[in-house]
Amino acid sequence: MFNASVYTARRDTLKKDVGSGLVLFLGNEESSINFKANWYHFRQDSSFLYFFGLSLPGLAAIVDIDHDRTTVFGDELSIDDIVWTGPQPTIAELANRSGVQHTDSLKALVSVLNKALQSGSTIHYLPPYRPENSLKLQHWLGFDQEQIQRGHSVELIKAIVAQRSYKSALEIEEINKAVDITADMHLTAMKLVSEGKKEMEIVGAVQEVAVGAGGQLSYPVILTRNGQILHNHYHGNTLRSGDMVLVDCGAEVATGYAGDMTRTFPVDSQFTERQKTLYELVVKAHTTAVDTLQPDIPFKEVHLTACKTLVEGLKEIGLMKGDAQEAVNAGAHTMFFQCGLGHMMGLDVHDMEDLGEQYVGYTDTMIKSVEFGLKSLRLGKALEPGFVITVEPGIYIIPELIDLWKATNKNAQFINYQALESYRDFGGIRVEEDFVITETGAQLLGKPVAKTAAAVESIRTEATA
Amino acid sequence: MFNASVYTARRDTLKKDVGSGLVLFLGNEESSINFKANWYHFRQDSSFLYFFGLSLPGLAAIVDIDHDRTTVFGDELSIDDIVWTGPQPTIAELANRSGVQHTDSLKALVSVLNKALQSGSTIHYLPPYRPENSLKLQHWLGFDQEQIQRGHSVELIKAIVAQRSYKSALEIEEINKAVDITADMHLTAMKLVSEGKKEMEIVGAVQEVAVGAGGQLSYPVILTRNGQILHNHYHGNTLRSGDMVLVDCGAEVATGYAGDMTRTFPVDSQFTERQKTLYELVVKAHTTAVDTLQPDIPFKEVHLTACKTLVEGLKEIGLMKGDAQEAVNAGAHTMFFQCGLGHMMGLDVHDMEDLGEQYVGYTDTMIKSVEFGLKSLRLGKALEPGFVITVEPGIYIIPELIDLWKATNKNAQFINYQALESYRDFGGIRVEEDFVITETGAQLLGKPVAKTAAAVESIRTEATA
Repeated sequence: MFNASVYTARRDTLKKDVGSGLVLFLGNEESSINFKANWYHFRQDSSFLYFFGLSLPGLAAIVDIDHDRTTVFGDELSIDDIVWTGPQPTIAELANRSGVQHTDSLKALVSVLNKALQSGSTIHYLPPYRPENSLKLQHWLGFDQEQIQRGHSVELIKAIVAQRSYKSALEIEEINKAVDITADMHLTAMKLVSEGKKEMEIVGAVQEVAVGAGGQLSYPVILTRNGQILHNHYHGNTLRSGDMVLVDCGAEVATGYAGDMTRTFPVDSQFTERQKTLYELVVKAHTTAVDTLQPDIPFKEVHLTACKTLVEGLKEIGLMKGDAQEAVNAGAHTMFFQCGLGHMMGLDVHDMEDLGEQYVGYTDTMIKSVEFGLKSLRLGKALEPGFVITVEPGIYIIPELIDLWKATNKNAQFINYQALESYRDFGGIRVEEDFVITETGAQLLGKPVAKTAAAVESIRTEATA
Repeated sequence: MFNASVYTARRDTLKKDVGSGLVLFLGNEESSINFKANWYHFRQDSSFLYFFGLSLPGLAAIVDIDHDRTTVFGDELSIDDIVWTGPQPTIAELANRSGVQHTDSLKALVSVLNKALQSGSTIHYLPPYRPENSLKLQHWLGFDQEQIQRGHSVELIKAIVAQRSYKSALEIEEINKAVDITADMHLTAMKLVSEGKKEMEIVGAVQEVAVGAGGQLSYPVILTRNGQILHNHYHGNTLRSGDMVLVDCGAEVATGYAGDMTRTFPVDSQFTERQKTLYELVVKAHTTAVDTLQPDIPFKEVHLTACKTLVEGLKEIGLMKGDAQEAVNAGAHTMFFQCGLGHMMGLDVHDMEDLGEQYVGYTDTMIKSVEFGLKSLRLGKALEPGFVITVEPGIYIIPELIDLWKATNKNAQFINYQALESYRDFGGIRVEEDFVITETGAQLLGKPVAKTAAAVESIRTEATA
């Protein structure tokens, strides 16, 4: 964690931004796998991390704005616990690391909340994304589940987004560490893949890099010969000559910051001609998008620029036709690129997604679209210095989508369905990197990893020699 | 998964054993890390796996005993889902793999349950260990959380324990696979450790073995120079000459079966004399315990035999004194061995722990102790052919426990506190293997891994050469 003063300053800003009432922060609990005491690795809630930095289960905190009093709540360990966990800091010692002077038991927390409810104070809390925290709110506030879902504080969400969206130098340093480890994960995969290996073998090696560096995965590894399946977590396939492997994985460092990167490369030393053409088109869309990154440009515009670049390239190849801008306006490109160009990244790989995409990626006057394609664009609003974002264009040939659209001749003026048929089993390509928006443009985060077809083929040539 | 007939037969037995009413099985959901759609690897509930074999989120099932009708409930994917997940089998196809003819939506499940509640049928369900399933029961049955915790079916628990406790040949095959991978994890660690490496580096490599073999960890890896902390998940230490490393880790295979093994070895090529003496004592306690394994012997007796062996050895070393049996009766050995000798293992590393340790490890006439030491013995009852268990004696020198007991001279007639002082920073040793109880004794599961001090030192000598 950072120095206590960092957390104190963040809470001071929060108090000003929210204005009044009590802010209730729920820490996460251990998450059970197949029985109570068998746990996934513990992950603290990101907003709790941001304002308190404490990465342990069983904690909650209240920032009482009206009385300017912040308290960390938790229960001390018994000697029985210590036999199993070793000696641990007291709650007061933990709170002190966050710059918090007051601590109390979880029982006392319930009294504080009850008193606040009785006196009519506003209790600000965030939308719970974990069921244990929904249950806590039910017990502590006496609300039913529907009230809990409705009752979260939009003021609190907006105040948190207003801080967490702008990454400080300290945060950028942590994100750079995470992306550096992420880069090593990708280089490991790029070097290890060979014909006959199973996807899972490479997944194991990639995971080792993150864990061995003292981190965790920032999200489940996607490593597949079927890159057209966007969130594919099946790793049972054997890699064959002629396949491409899409690897989308990232590390999270101990402070909680994430990296997020994707590379696509051939199992052989070289792409096939067809693969190379589409690969280079995706890289072109990536580069074009990155070149436009700068303060004030709406990311939706960057997204649509990438889409248009893809359409122009697909026209050259003969998979699309007609006017590129009209095709994008009609959403015809979503046959090939069904998702968004990128998202915020920070303490979460999709930063603050638990707070609501509308609040994080859009504005009061820019509402997130519900159309296929754009509805998966998590970030639409104008970029600002300090935003950390991903840029991840792709081309995905999804047979089920071809069949669905073709049945009604959807966008037939823009899509060459006949040519597309011969690409049915082509697979998918994605190229993704992370950037921080600067005063004048954008800067790549983490060390660079081979990206052009030539650079990728050079690594693969060495790896398969 | 196994053939459909396996699941059908298990459900038929269950129906007979429970007798009447509806049995409601709740599948697990995806488990969110730091926002809704960022998930830990999915793990199905083990009883759901045992009776249906389906390892996907979003499923539930009802075995209606009175009407002899089993139904799998789940919702089909939309085309939007398929873009992200690829084509998936229908609920009917899934049910078919479990030998189930009837399927319906989750909405229909609620009607079935409401009808059953209105007609006064008993709805048998298991104690929920995941908060999402507590919330489901709240929504579906209209119970409050206290009712839900109280309302689980003891008949159902007993009927499930009566089946899952006895592992079939098919299950033993899967467990052997899991323990073989587990053995490879340990060999990897034993070969990779060297002075100056960080614990986390070895953790990464160990995890790679499990994931690379297409599995997962069956529980979080314990890999530490502080073996005296029983559930130590901190991996930030650097390994130093003179340290011992305690590695407790296991793999879970795709069918869900677990392995569970512990080894303790020196960072140098050889144990120190002091380490070797205590290490050999733990191995002796292990061997003595394993030699007594056979049907009808209460595992509590095996545990106490191991405890007595430890006390006898500790007397020779001068750390304990007095009559060994009396020392064990008084619980004096729990200064060194604070936990239980072992537990059931199967689809869970602590098999069926979610059903309640009293039901799994004890009987109506043998109640689990609440004393320090014995209260951590998860299995006390008589062994039977088909039981799969772990045997894991250890010696743990816990400074906080020394201070606590010494303050009141607790068990001073059995413990040589003066001699113990010089062992304060000794650390901890555990040796653990998995066995299936046969008609005449017990059989080691998985391939053997170096266990005697000599065999361990031989591997370490080669590794550090």
